[in-house]
Amino acid sequence: MLIVMKVDATAEQIDAVAQRVRTLGYVAHVMPGLNRTAVGVTGNKGPEGRETLALLPGVDEVIRVTAPYKLVSREVHPEPTVFPVAGTSVGNGFTLIAGPCSVESEKMIVESARFLAARGVKLLRGGAYKPRTSPYSFQGMGTEGLKFLAKARQETGLGIVTEVMDVESVSPIEEVADVLQVGTRNMQNYALLRRLAQARKPVLLKRGMAATLEEWLMAAEYIMSGGNYQVILCERGVRTFADHTRNTLDLSIVPVVKHFSHLPVIVDPSHGTGKSQFVPPMSLAALAAGADGLMVEVHPNPKEALSDGAQSLDFAAFAKLVDALRPVAAALSTPIR
Amino acid sequence: MLIVMKVDATAEQIDAVAQRVRTLGYVAHVMPGLNRTAVGVTGNKGPEGRETLALLPGVDEVIRVTAPYKLVSREVHPEPTVFPVAGTSVGNGFTLIAGPCSVESEKMIVESARFLAARGVKLLRGGAYKPRTSPYSFQGMGTEGLKFLAKARQETGLGIVTEVMDVESVSPIEEVADVLQVGTRNMQNYALLRRLAQARKPVLLKRGMAATLEEWLMAAEYIMSGGNYQVILCERGVRTFADHTRNTLDLSIVPVVKHFSHLPVIVDPSHGTGKSQFVPPMSLAALAAGADGLMVEVHPNPKEALSDGAQSLDFAAFAKLVDALRPVAAALSTPIR
Amino acid sequence: MLIVMKVDATAEQIDAVAQRVRTLGYVAHVMPGLNRTAVGVTGNKGPEGRETLALLPGVDEVIRVTAPYKLVSREVHPEPTVFPVAGTSVGNGFTLIAGPCSVESEKMIVESARFLAARGVKLLRGGAYKPRTSPYSFQGMGTEGLKFLAKARQETGLGIVTEVMDVESVSPIEEVADVLQVGTRNMQNYALLRRLAQARKPVLLKRGMAATLEEWLMAAEYIMSGGNYQVILCERGVRTFADHTRNTLDLSIVPVVKHFSHLPVIVDPSHGTGKSQFVPPMSLAALAAGADGLMVEVHPNPKEALSDGAQSLDFAAFAKLVDALRPVAAALSTPIR
Amino acid sequence: MLIVMKVDATAEQIDAVAQRVRTLGYVAHVMPGLNRTAVGVTGNKGPEGRETLALLPGVDEVIRVTAPYKLVSREVHPEPTVFPVAGTSVGNGFTLIAGPCSVESEKMIVESARFLAARGVKLLRGGAYKPRTSPYSFQGMGTEGLKFLAKARQETGLGIVTEVMDVESVSPIEEVADVLQVGTRNMQNYALLRRLAQARKPVLLKRGMAATLEEWLMAAEYIMSGGNYQVILCERGVRTFADHTRNTLDLSIVPVVKHFSHLPVIVDPSHGTGKSQFVPPMSLAALAAGADGLMVEVHPNPKEALSDGAQSLDFAAFAKLVDALRPVAAALSTPIR
Repeated sequence: MLIVMKVDATAEQIDAVAQRVRTLGYVAHVMPGLNRTAVGVTGNKGPEGRETLALLPGVDEVIRVTAPYKLVSREVHPEPTVFPVAGTSVGNGFTLIAGPCSVESEKMIVESARFLAARGVKLLRGGAYKPRTSPYSFQGMGTEGLKFLAKARQETGLGIVTEVMDVESVSPIEEVADVLQVGTRNMQNYALLRRLAQARKPVLLKRGMAATLEEWLMAAEYIMSGGNYQVILCERGVRTFADHTRNTLDLSIVPVVKHFSHLPVIVDPSHGTGKSQFVPPMSLAALAAGADGLMVEVHPNPKEALSDGAQSLDFAAFAKLVDALRPVAAALSTPIR
Repeated sequence: MLIVMKVDATAEQIDAVAQRVRTLGYVAHVMPGLNRTAVGVTGNKGPEGRETLALLPGVDEVIRVTAPYKLVSREVHPEPTVFPVAGTSVGNGFTLIAGPCSVESEKMIVESARFLAARGVKLLRGGAYKPRTSPYSFQGMGTEGLKFLAKARQETGLGIVTEVMDVESVSPIEEVADVLQVGTRNMQNYALLRRLAQARKPVLLKRGMAATLEEWLMAAEYIMSGGNYQVILCERGVRTFADHTRNTLDLSIVPVVKHFSHLPVIVDPSHGTGKSQFVPPMSLAALAAGADGLMVEVHPNPKEALSDGAQSLDFAAFAKLVDALRPVAAALSTPIR
Repeated sequence: MLIVMKVDATAEQIDAVAQRVRTLGYVAHVMPGLNRTAVGVTGNKGPEGRETLALLPGVDEVIRVTAPYKLVSREVHPEPTVFPVAGTSVGNGFTLIAGPCSVESEKMIVESARFLAARGVKLLRGGAYKPRTSPYSFQGMGTEGLKFLAKARQETGLGIVTEVMDVESVSPIEEVADVLQVGTRNMQNYALLRRLAQARKPVLLKRGMAATLEEWLMAAEYIMSGGNYQVILCERGVRTFADHTRNTLDLSIVPVVKHFSHLPVIVDPSHGTGKSQFVPPMSLAALAAGADGLMVEVHPNPKEALSDGAQSLDFAAFAKLVDALRPVAAALSTPIR
Repeated sequence: MLIVMKVDATAEQIDAVAQRVRTLGYVAHVMPGLNRTAVGVTGNKGPEGRETLALLPGVDEVIRVTAPYKLVSREVHPEPTVFPVAGTSVGNGFTLIAGPCSVESEKMIVESARFLAARGVKLLRGGAYKPRTSPYSFQGMGTEGLKFLAKARQETGLGIVTEVMDVESVSPIEEVADVLQVGTRNMQNYALLRRLAQARKPVLLKRGMAATLEEWLMAAEYIMSGGNYQVILCERGVRTFADHTRNTLDLSIVPVVKHFSHLPVIVDPSHGTGKSQFVPPMSLAALAAGADGLMVEVHPNPKEALSDGAQSLDFAAFAKLVDALRPVAAALSTPIR
């Protein structure tokens, strides 16, 4: 921590700041400058006390220096995290997760699973519970949807990735799912994160719509600090002024996450762009940027989809995408999983 | 809804679009133009089908026309909503809500309540459960904090405004609180909103960090559509590129909310600015912009606060603020409540 | 400046950093911490060298401490800047600037000037040269528009505020104008700023669409460092995700500007909101927030305006606004000028 | 254009709107709906009149339907634009532009050019005039810098890409440069765009820091409508709340530009990320996303650079990047130029 004093701070004020730092149990380093003095603080383990130091007379600004995350940090865990999921793995290649936005019927989810399995996909996405902006929109099939997902797994062996929206439904969903997905609106739903810290299944944590890198990693820290170390991060676009895509897909966070954290990070170009025609180029870009995988919406008939039709690939488009990914993955020496 | 066809759309494609619109049970109005044709759609009650129409051959864009909110809308309820809360009211004046970020002890909350009551405030804020970015930060006093809030009410008669973070704690909090606060991170926590729709107390719904007007009003619609019509909206700053304040306080949403909705809207300049010295000017600005009230952080000793110290007013600063508000409120003929 | 070393930085790396700091002519303060070491740097006058220090082995981050602005800073000029303009003044009250977006004819600008003069306004705005997103939109009347503005001044005595878009037109505009306006798109047009530093008239510098406080103040520093000390800052809304107003009017920058700088800052609620119905509440809010004035679009017949009709007040609405401002200004003890 | 009437609009108001549309020379299509009426407008060539229609009694909203750009649009020019530049071409492959942020000496620019030529690069970037936030920062070598660029071209045959900041310097720069670069701050400097419309050299137009797709394409339209059809668009990151990179590189605009326009679009990952270590992954991502090229900062010794050192690759890192690009380009069947 660094405390910057005002230009006109008095010697007494500087002393008082240093004294206060010592009272908090830290070490104060007074550094006189040309125009003003700064006080370095060491020995602190987090930002505790930062706000109140800023209120002392003569203080201009207090600057935090060390990042607040621990378990997610690459500094404490230099090797990338890799873990197995339902016959494949995450963290050591480019893992494909595909499927419809929502489970709409047994037929459509089983049909989707069969198609995807035939194209080499190992993980099926599909929502049984859907967060919707309007209370009047389709909210998912619920329990019945879970049954259909179980059926799809039974028929094809695909692992299931599905969304949990609240604490209550974690247990029943955990019975069926291989990966528990947390949506963008729930990234800082701490009750849910704490419950997932107790879950036996990996968690796929989508980035909040306007979450900074730090907030996202700290949300993962909630899950890890409770004992669940299998967290997959998922970039899905953030909210900006730009209006040419549904969200602004922030691909540059992929190498930055990998710099600061050992956790795997995948990309959702379907929500990221909002339009199916832009999903393939951004999928290739995600692969080239070094992402650990892709989560993409595929629907047997997007024109009839109950949700997210505009951003879903149909089977032919998805098959074409996989064919386009393979040579690029080979050029990058990245195995597709 | 308006469907814009591509410049080179064929007559067959236009017919197919119109036919599809009719299949959905709506009326299609084909409008040939100089360069391209548009198809107006009437009789639709919401955006259902919009996404799939966008996928038909020859369609360039589908534009939604009518707003999706119903119960929150001023069109269906032209008079502003006013309701009584704990000896005062919301919606027909400028209601002051003040108090510390968190309950830190019985002494500090009762002392705060006494001071505020003496300054004419009727509603006390104070968090017993705190959403924190880091799992390692102070998370609130929980049940004990609720007891201290009850004590403060008993001693002073002030109404209690406190945050609910999850479905589980709504019932115990409802025993104590007069207003149930939903924080910015939970604006789209739909399980929580549905539970609050069953609550017997008014809900104060903070705007999400990056929520549009429509998303915010739709979150209120979740609460109202479940039967709880006492919703107070609270602007608390949004996330932008600007770094001179903690958030960007979007005061202009105040008159816009009042244009589209009948619900009361108040302003939180403490989170909006993040620095106590900027709270008074923005409080005056909120009053002048037509807000229905203020939610402001006040602490007996901000330098020692466990959270949000930098943005909390001390007693003297709050007293000075109230003195500054009174003549402006009088000039605006707005009663302070 | 503060240099944060990596957790695993070696003693040699720390020494090398300190040595390099000394080579640059500064003083290095090595501060060992619990987990890592930081090196404080004093004696530096600006960010020079910052980027290259960040590249030394073992360095994690370099944090700038002192603000880069000088002449605009309140630290070097504690009293607010006040200067006379065309029979009124800026910086010691609430100065009204009003008029149409563009000069459209002699009749309309003279008629507008007469109306405004009768309502006590001293400064007339009106664009002869207009920056337009499309090359096919109305670009202003140019030289002829300047003549009409001169006519309006001659008839009413009002001072003229008009936009300069390029270096070439500064001289002819300076003949007519009392204040030279720089639009949001030109805030960092440095050739223009350097030319205005030589101008004999005050400059009204609008904030760039996505400018930080620092960039805005540094743009003013360009003008001041060249010798023109009469700069008025103007907040006109910034670009964010929010779509309920044309821009997001960032009123909270008003007290922050006044904290860091001695320059006067006014508000343009017309561009800030984009809709005439929201201009009056935000004008009142600007006054209450402590702004030094208002720049508002007024048109004799907004329905026929060639540009910005939707956000222009008609005469009756402007008269009503002035009547609403007076009692609030009185309550705040702020003279309207 | 579509005019949405209010729910309570009267028949007279609807008639008046339709009448007004006809007066403007357009065709009105009245469409009664369940709750409200809409009026479709056809025959209009642009948004003229839109704002004033919004002000008629009973009108709720006016929605623009057709995009305003003409010459840049793929609808009027379905084939991608390709043109030769200095021995290579733009628009039919992946064109590499590399070099230092600023020309710092003859030696460094000639040395850089030689290295780049040896790696197969055909276009050298280097600024002689630099836009800087602070008036006190290094502003470029000016005329002397141009001479050194000419020398570098003479020695190596590389084409020169360099920035023009104002109208005055276009002519001298045009003598030396093969491509005239417009920086992000000048994207809407219309005087400059109009001058470049007369230039004999291609223009590289960087996206404004907070420019929408439409504003960017309209800025290109300024250049094209004046007669210069050789425009290269360049995405360089936009300003958002995200703080993990210098700007937020919006790669998804690449396929969107290619959908709406025939102009080539390249990517600048140096400004996009601000940190050299993240430049290679985002360069690969740009290639995979379908960009027409790359503009990347390379410096013989980034630690000593006068500007942008932190985001510049050194020679070894650039050589490694080119080696990484080649197999991916081959996998995509995209020739590197």
